Amino acid sequence: MAIKITGLGSFIPDVIQKNDQFKDHTFLNMDGSAITSENGVIIEKFKAITGIEERRYAPSEMKSSDMGSKAAEKAIKDAGIDRETLDYIICAHNYGDVQKGSNFSDIVPSLASRIKHNLRIQNPKCVAYDILFGCPGWIEGVIQAQAFIKAGMAKKCLVIGTEMLSRVVDDNDRDSMIYSDGAGATVIEEDDSDTGILAFETATFTYDEAYFLFNGSSYNTEANQDTKYIKMYGRKIYNFALTQVPQAMKSCLEKSGCSIDEVKKIFIHQANEKMDEAIVSRFYKLHDLEMPEHIMPMSINKLGNSSVATVPTVFDLVRQGALENHEINKGDVVIFASVGAGMNINAMIYRY
Amino acid sequence: MAIKITGLGSFIPDVIQKNDQFKDHTFLNMDGSAITSENGVIIEKFKAITGIEERRYAPSEMKSSDMGSKAAEKAIKDAGIDRETLDYIICAHNYGDVQKGSNFSDIVPSLASRIKHNLRIQNPKCVAYDILFGCPGWIEGVIQAQAFIKAGMAKKCLVIGTEMLSRVVDDNDRDSMIYSDGAGATVIEEDDSDTGILAFETATFTYDEAYFLFNGSSYNTEANQDTKYIKMYGRKIYNFALTQVPQAMKSCLEKSGCSIDEVKKIFIHQANEKMDEAIVSRFYKLHDLEMPEHIMPMSINKLGNSSVATVPTVFDLVRQGALENHEINKGDVVIFASVGAGMNINAMIYRY
Repeated sequence: MAIKITGLGSFIPDVIQKNDQFKDHTFLNMDGSAITSENGVIIEKFKAITGIEERRYAPSEMKSSDMGSKAAEKAIKDAGIDRETLDYIICAHNYGDVQKGSNFSDIVPSLASRIKHNLRIQNPKCVAYDILFGCPGWIEGVIQAQAFIKAGMAKKCLVIGTEMLSRVVDDNDRDSMIYSDGAGATVIEEDDSDTGILAFETATFTYDEAYFLFNGSSYNTEANQDTKYIKMYGRKIYNFALTQVPQAMKSCLEKSGCSIDEVKKIFIHQANEKMDEAIVSRFYKLHDLEMPEHIMPMSINKLGNSSVATVPTVFDLVRQGALENHEINKGDVVIFASVGAGMNINAMIYRY
Repeated sequence: MAIKITGLGSFIPDVIQKNDQFKDHTFLNMDGSAITSENGVIIEKFKAITGIEERRYAPSEMKSSDMGSKAAEKAIKDAGIDRETLDYIICAHNYGDVQKGSNFSDIVPSLASRIKHNLRIQNPKCVAYDILFGCPGWIEGVIQAQAFIKAGMAKKCLVIGTEMLSRVVDDNDRDSMIYSDGAGATVIEEDDSDTGILAFETATFTYDEAYFLFNGSSYNTEANQDTKYIKMYGRKIYNFALTQVPQAMKSCLEKSGCSIDEVKKIFIHQANEKMDEAIVSRFYKLHDLEMPEHIMPMSINKLGNSSVATVPTVFDLVRQGALENHEINKGDVVIFASVGAGMNINAMIYRY
C-alpha cells in the first residue's frame, strides 16, 4: 500500500511588492531605537542574506481562505477526483483570515470549513478542520492525512496550506520584508504503486524554543502596543534550524531505507536562502558529502516566505517546469522538510 | 486492541459570574435597536431556555493555554504516566489566547506548544499541534489521537480542550450570557481490555451552515465595528442541531454494535439546556423510546457553555461523583456528542 499525492495546486497572488517599495519605511530596532544604516543598505543586506528580491501580496479584498480555495480547486482538478468523495479537508495556517487594515485573526468558523463552503461540497461526511503547526503545517497535514488513511478512516484527503502574512507585519520591523502571501494544496490518496510517502519525522521543541516566533507589538513605541504582529528572534531560529533540521532529515532518510544518492530534490520551507543553503549543506555534510548542484529548488527570490505555502508551491513550480534547472521525474526520491513556529520541524521522504 | 481514556482532568475557574450581574447591561437587537423588555425579564427568559444561572470566568491574568495546562497536569497525574512518554499533545480551542481587554486571538505559537512548554516536557518527539473544529474539537482530538495510535504513530496522546469565551463576548448581546471559560484534558492510550472507544462519527456541514457561528461586530452600532465578538444565529443552530445530532448519535450507536438499553450516560456539549434535552429526547424517539431519567448529566446551570471544555468537564464531574444522581461504573456504555462552529457534529460510543 502506498499513500501519495495525486493532485497538486498552488495560488500565487498577483500583487508584486519589490524590495525598493520598502525604501521609505522607518526601520527600528527591537527597543524602538533608530537603525543608523540607510534603508538602501538595510535592503541590500536583507537581500544578500534572505535571497528575497520581491514578494507577493494578496489583493486587499481577498482573505487567506479565498487563496486556499483557489489552490484547492486546482489540486482537485489535477487529481481528477469528484470533490464529493473527499473524506477530509485539512487546512494549515497560522493567522486565520485577517481583513486588510485589521489585526483580528478570524478562525471561527475554521478556514477548512470556509474552503469547503467555497468549494460547494455538500457531503457532510467530508470532515473539515484546521491544524496550527507553524510553517511546517502543510507537511504535518499530509502526515495526518496518511494516518487517517492507514487507520481506515479515509481514502481521499485534501490538505491545504494558506497564509497571508502581509496582513500581520510590523512596517517598522526589517523582518517585515521576509513575509508574503500564498497557498498550496494537495490531494492525498492510497494506491497500490511503489511510489508515495516512504517515511516521515516530526518534532516539537518547546522547552526553551516555544517563543522564538511569537506575536509582539510594533517596534515603534508610539504605535498602539495592543496591536500585535508576527515577530521572531531570527538569530535563535537560525541556530536552532541549523542544529535540528539536518538531523531530522537524516533520521527520516534512514527510516525510508533510501540512500542519499537517490535523493533528487529537496523541497525545503523557504524562510531565508542562506539558512536553507546552510541546512541542506549540513545535511550532506552529515553524510560526508558536498551539497550537489540544483538539489534545492528555490522560489524565495520572487515569492518571499509564505509560511505553510512555500513547500507545496515550490513543488508545484518544479512539476510545472517553471524553475530553471529543475525537473522531477517518475520514481525520483525527494525530501520535503520544514521548520517554524512551535518550534516545529518535520521531514518526509517521498518517491514521486 | 482497545483505545481508551486513561487519565482525565478539568479546570473550572474560580470567578463566579451570576445572572444578576448582567442586570445593568444594555442588551440590543442584532440591528442595534433597543430590546423593549426589562433586563429582569430578559434574564429570566434566558435562564428558562438555557438553564444557566451562573457561569465561570477566568481571572484576568490567566490565558486559555494556562487553563489547558492545569487540566493537562491533572490528566497526566490521573493516568499515572511519565509525561516524557507522550507522543502527541493535541489542543482544541477556537480563539487562542486572548488577553483581557484585547480582541487579538494569539495562536502563534500554537496553544499545544504553550501547554507543552508549561508542562516542562523536553522530549521533542512529543508532537504538539492545535485543532480548530468548533465546540466538538475535544471529541475530534480524541478521534485523531486514536487514529495515530491505530496507524502505529503513537502510544500515548494528551488531548486538551480549552476556551476562554468571556474574552470574546459582546456585552450588548444577550447571547453573551451563555458563554464561559474552562478546560478539560484526557490521556488516550492503547490497552488490551474490552473497554474504550467502540465507534465514532464526525460530520461537517458547510453548504448552507458554515456561518451559523461566526465573528461579528457589536450590536452597539456606536462601538468600534472592527472589534469582533462571537456571534450566532441561535434559532438556525437550534433547528440544525435538532435535525442532525440525534441522527449522528443513532448511526454511531449502530456502528458500535451496542443496543440503546446499554447506554448509561450521554455526555453532550452543553450549549443550551432545552436544546440538549430536545436532542437527547429525539435520539430516544428515533428508537421509539422515552428519554430515561438521569441519562444526561448537566453542569450548564453552574458552568455555562465553555465550548470544547464542556464535555470533558462534565465527564470529570460525574466520575468524581460531584453531580447528584449521576455515577459511572466500569463497563458502562456512554455516548459523547457535540455540535458547534463549522458547523461540526461528532459522537463517540465508549465503554468505561
